[in-house]
Amino acid sequence: MIGIALMGAGRMARTHAKAISAAGGKLVSVYDVVESAAKSLAGDFGAAAMPSAEEAFNRPDVAAVLVVTSSNTHVDLIIKAVQAGKAVMCEKPLAPNLTDAQRCIEVLGSKASSVFLAFNRRFDAGHAELKKAIDQGEIGSLEQLTITSRDPAPPPLDYIPNSGGLFRDMMIHDFDMVRWMLGDIDTACVTMVTQSGKQAMILNCRRAVFGYDQRIEAFGSAGMVISDNPRATGVTRYSSTTFGAPDRIFTFYMDRYGDSYRREIETFLGGVAAGTPPPVNAIDGLRASYLADAAGASLRLGRPIELKDNCEVTWSD
Amino acid sequence: MIGIALMGAGRMARTHAKAISAAGGKLVSVYDVVESAAKSLAGDFGAAAMPSAEEAFNRPDVAAVLVVTSSNTHVDLIIKAVQAGKAVMCEKPLAPNLTDAQRCIEVLGSKASSVFLAFNRRFDAGHAELKKAIDQGEIGSLEQLTITSRDPAPPPLDYIPNSGGLFRDMMIHDFDMVRWMLGDIDTACVTMVTQSGKQAMILNCRRAVFGYDQRIEAFGSAGMVISDNPRATGVTRYSSTTFGAPDRIFTFYMDRYGDSYRREIETFLGGVAAGTPPPVNAIDGLRASYLADAAGASLRLGRPIELKDNCEVTWSD
Amino acid sequence: MIGIALMGAGRMARTHAKAISAAGGKLVSVYDVVESAAKSLAGDFGAAAMPSAEEAFNRPDVAAVLVVTSSNTHVDLIIKAVQAGKAVMCEKPLAPNLTDAQRCIEVLGSKASSVFLAFNRRFDAGHAELKKAIDQGEIGSLEQLTITSRDPAPPPLDYIPNSGGLFRDMMIHDFDMVRWMLGDIDTACVTMVTQSGKQAMILNCRRAVFGYDQRIEAFGSAGMVISDNPRATGVTRYSSTTFGAPDRIFTFYMDRYGDSYRREIETFLGGVAAGTPPPVNAIDGLRASYLADAAGASLRLGRPIELKDNCEVTWSD
Amino acid sequence: MIGIALMGAGRMARTHAKAISAAGGKLVSVYDVVESAAKSLAGDFGAAAMPSAEEAFNRPDVAAVLVVTSSNTHVDLIIKAVQAGKAVMCEKPLAPNLTDAQRCIEVLGSKASSVFLAFNRRFDAGHAELKKAIDQGEIGSLEQLTITSRDPAPPPLDYIPNSGGLFRDMMIHDFDMVRWMLGDIDTACVTMVTQSGKQAMILNCRRAVFGYDQRIEAFGSAGMVISDNPRATGVTRYSSTTFGAPDRIFTFYMDRYGDSYRREIETFLGGVAAGTPPPVNAIDGLRASYLADAAGASLRLGRPIELKDNCEVTWSD
Repeated sequence: MIGIALMGAGRMARTHAKAISAAGGKLVSVYDVVESAAKSLAGDFGAAAMPSAEEAFNRPDVAAVLVVTSSNTHVDLIIKAVQAGKAVMCEKPLAPNLTDAQRCIEVLGSKASSVFLAFNRRFDAGHAELKKAIDQGEIGSLEQLTITSRDPAPPPLDYIPNSGGLFRDMMIHDFDMVRWMLGDIDTACVTMVTQSGKQAMILNCRRAVFGYDQRIEAFGSAGMVISDNPRATGVTRYSSTTFGAPDRIFTFYMDRYGDSYRREIETFLGGVAAGTPPPVNAIDGLRASYLADAAGASLRLGRPIELKDNCEVTWSD
Repeated sequence: MIGIALMGAGRMARTHAKAISAAGGKLVSVYDVVESAAKSLAGDFGAAAMPSAEEAFNRPDVAAVLVVTSSNTHVDLIIKAVQAGKAVMCEKPLAPNLTDAQRCIEVLGSKASSVFLAFNRRFDAGHAELKKAIDQGEIGSLEQLTITSRDPAPPPLDYIPNSGGLFRDMMIHDFDMVRWMLGDIDTACVTMVTQSGKQAMILNCRRAVFGYDQRIEAFGSAGMVISDNPRATGVTRYSSTTFGAPDRIFTFYMDRYGDSYRREIETFLGGVAAGTPPPVNAIDGLRASYLADAAGASLRLGRPIELKDNCEVTWSD
Repeated sequence: MIGIALMGAGRMARTHAKAISAAGGKLVSVYDVVESAAKSLAGDFGAAAMPSAEEAFNRPDVAAVLVVTSSNTHVDLIIKAVQAGKAVMCEKPLAPNLTDAQRCIEVLGSKASSVFLAFNRRFDAGHAELKKAIDQGEIGSLEQLTITSRDPAPPPLDYIPNSGGLFRDMMIHDFDMVRWMLGDIDTACVTMVTQSGKQAMILNCRRAVFGYDQRIEAFGSAGMVISDNPRATGVTRYSSTTFGAPDRIFTFYMDRYGDSYRREIETFLGGVAAGTPPPVNAIDGLRASYLADAAGASLRLGRPIELKDNCEVTWSD
Repeated sequence: MIGIALMGAGRMARTHAKAISAAGGKLVSVYDVVESAAKSLAGDFGAAAMPSAEEAFNRPDVAAVLVVTSSNTHVDLIIKAVQAGKAVMCEKPLAPNLTDAQRCIEVLGSKASSVFLAFNRRFDAGHAELKKAIDQGEIGSLEQLTITSRDPAPPPLDYIPNSGGLFRDMMIHDFDMVRWMLGDIDTACVTMVTQSGKQAMILNCRRAVFGYDQRIEAFGSAGMVISDNPRATGVTRYSSTTFGAPDRIFTFYMDRYGDSYRREIETFLGGVAAGTPPPVNAIDGLRASYLADAAGASLRLGRPIELKDNCEVTWSD
């Protein structure tokens, strides 16, 4: 069984702690700047609370590290854990800004591609099925991609200062998927065109009263595949004013993406056991950061921003 | 943590073994007439293989017993486990025939209602949502209930001799839900009318080429609720010959009802811990057996069969 | 252009009058026992109001007769119109009771199959598509057929005395489709089994608060086709309590079946012009009457009723 | 009955001719540059073929004129018909280019708002229902509008030279709905932002293999309404590889928008009879032309284009 050190003891860390045992891993230790939080979480899962991240990295029974702390600590923890020889999985985003993200990739060097970056939506059953349909040529050549990604409510206020801003914490998911973007206070749309002419649009909003609205539509020369919002159940309702209304969609991220978190951890632990590289890594994290910054620049400058092959951008305000 | 003795080591037993740890229980021992199967399953979950059921019942670290053996052994194991003071959950059906079911209830006496009978469909999220809608008066007074229950393929041949016959192994689920029924080799429909005039219809078939077709429709004076087949994902497809086709429905019972098995075990363990009676018990199992036999009689005699309040039937061939 | 004499000047007659001109026919005359109603309808469509049915049948510019009067006058009008050499289309049912229906077929003799009996649901686009799928073997051999047919509200009170009773006026449609049935005051279900073992179920109710609930499901060895309720538009709605609710289904028969009435008239006029026999005729009407009576007998006697090949029944109360 | 002179005798003109009689109008005359086409169409509807447009405008029994000729003749025919005192309805677009559209509005002066411009999608039942939902505040304040508009196949080659280009013939519909746009050879997406911050996106493609893909999604502060593609019937299909596939969407414009054409003509004739102004007029046509040109300029210049309140644009290449 792979021993795991958890960095962070918040809501998301608790979610991962549960997924670890379900995936056959063993939670060995928990570290958090708030010591009482680390003790509470560690106690619930039979793990040890650590006084520092370093001590966790020094334990020989720790083979892998999960970084689930606030964004501004990601880069340092990743680097130290990699240097301690541990397998690393880090919550998105890689870093709260482009400078830190670039520094991380430089320091890691060839190890950058071995860090698992947790873009969990890649592991959503519907989105993955859509991706497979595209890859297998089911819809011919892809021509237009539309991503709708609306949250039911803004994140907690105390989460925002260290999140790197709305674009980096929310839209980073969508960037990871299409590599381009735009920004706004709470409602935004982005248009992206690839070098081969494929078009992508992202629609984001912080306030969808009906819940998480997370859909992807891929239109190609031979067809179209849509990954629609899943439902709480297969129940539909009829009354004098309702005519086959489907059941509610989800408003809590664990209900909507619980399965993808489980699959993500399984994929990480499976890769560690097999010694294979992660399907999504720190370099993907850097490229998504480029896109986030390009989107911000596009909004600020009022014009499209051109990107290089590796998503690097050069612009002047 | 509640220690559990598992009776049986087949496919279904393995499913329950997984659910036990996810639900916070501890699998202590495994017994099966095929000793190698018991050893294999016990080994995979860190439990002990038992040479006999009795020895499992004698262990003080066993608080609860799960009976997942072939139908013809259910009654004896239930009685012994109850007499040993253990909490008991038993897979449906209660017994392979009405005589054994009646004997079980007589011997158990007042303990009959404390035996958890595992009609797992009661724990399906969709069906439970529909039941709640009926109970809360959402559709006014219930008038017509239609249950469609079609399996993708017949069970393994070696399962049939001890299953009590097709009606008892497959339709017993539907009997539990509406309390009336009919029989046939592999395709059947049953009509039931309650004393207050509510109508229920059951459609069964052993061979639905598109997978498990398990739907319930409740029509009432103020509306209708339908619990439809869940889908593998929320993906829909378009091509030159396909226009919004939803993703596949399930063909493996664990994919279709995996969540209901988890909820069922959680409910059982939660009840054991809280000392509350199970929501579905051995007497429910007996009543479903009455219905199965009444359906067989109706088919044989070519006429409707009348039932008493407690589902007992008196007919002469 | 085919000249048409309309018998009846009620709501349904007006519907047919509109369909006649859209289908390229010419409304020549209107007759009704209520003379003012005949005058009003005739005036709106540039036709002549007739003082009697006979005078309408004597006009050489009348090639076809549409019978849309109350049920108890159908047989006499059909016979007279056929004897006058006119093509005849008659609203269902053929007659208000079995005796009259049998008399009609006897008197008509070989002409019975040339009378178009207006079972308009055969011309519904969805139901017709389902029928085609069955006939073309798309679902293999048909095994279970389920017809749901619920009306939003009972018919006007003054319609009932001459309608032949609830079973003959409402369920006659479903009889025509599967040939078997049952009865009740306002909620009923019928089970039918054909000689080759195909099963059919009909669910009827006079009071569906959400509108016309008219669905057919055909399950076969190779698949299933469902003809579901059409919607007012393709609009779906989301709010904090609604999650993709489809638009309303219909509550007025002309909205639900308007297209089928148009297609029916077109089929009738097309057949008259081409000299080909109607796809559904008076003998079909008689057989549906047999089924209606058999259903009533089954309810009265509390047992299944056996039918001969031609749907004739022999039973004793 | 309102007498109507039809300008044009092509496929679209024939569609309108049918709708005229269904809407209670009377087709009096037909004119087309191809005299034989005019004669054929006039003959089929009992109307007179005219040797010139002027002679049609001079007939006292002509109260209204329908312009269904090629785009480059629209402006002249509209002006002449208005000057002859006739009510006018003209197929979109108003003119093949912005200069002609501006000239038309200038010459018409105050009469511009009395010319009915046939943006038929405003009369689609689903789109109209969505508009009503927005107007009635059902989704709170509108925030994001997404229009998907994909055709099953390019128009006939001989149609293109006089159509004003792909953007003006196809996307003009979408311009009319949101007032902003972009252009491309056969696949395009446009982003528009209104002065109050509402966002709109248009997705266009000439080649959707599954048929007309014409959807509108309106997302607001209190909900979302989607007008989805209608289906040929309410039939869904199941097989070993299909799991509830809905029936086909439409590939022929008359099947998809037949009802909207009928409603459009009814609205025109109803307005003529009542003396009320049309709900969509020549000025709307001019504004859509501004948007088409702005979209072209945006594509050419590679930057967003700003518009004035009345949609007028000032840019320099």
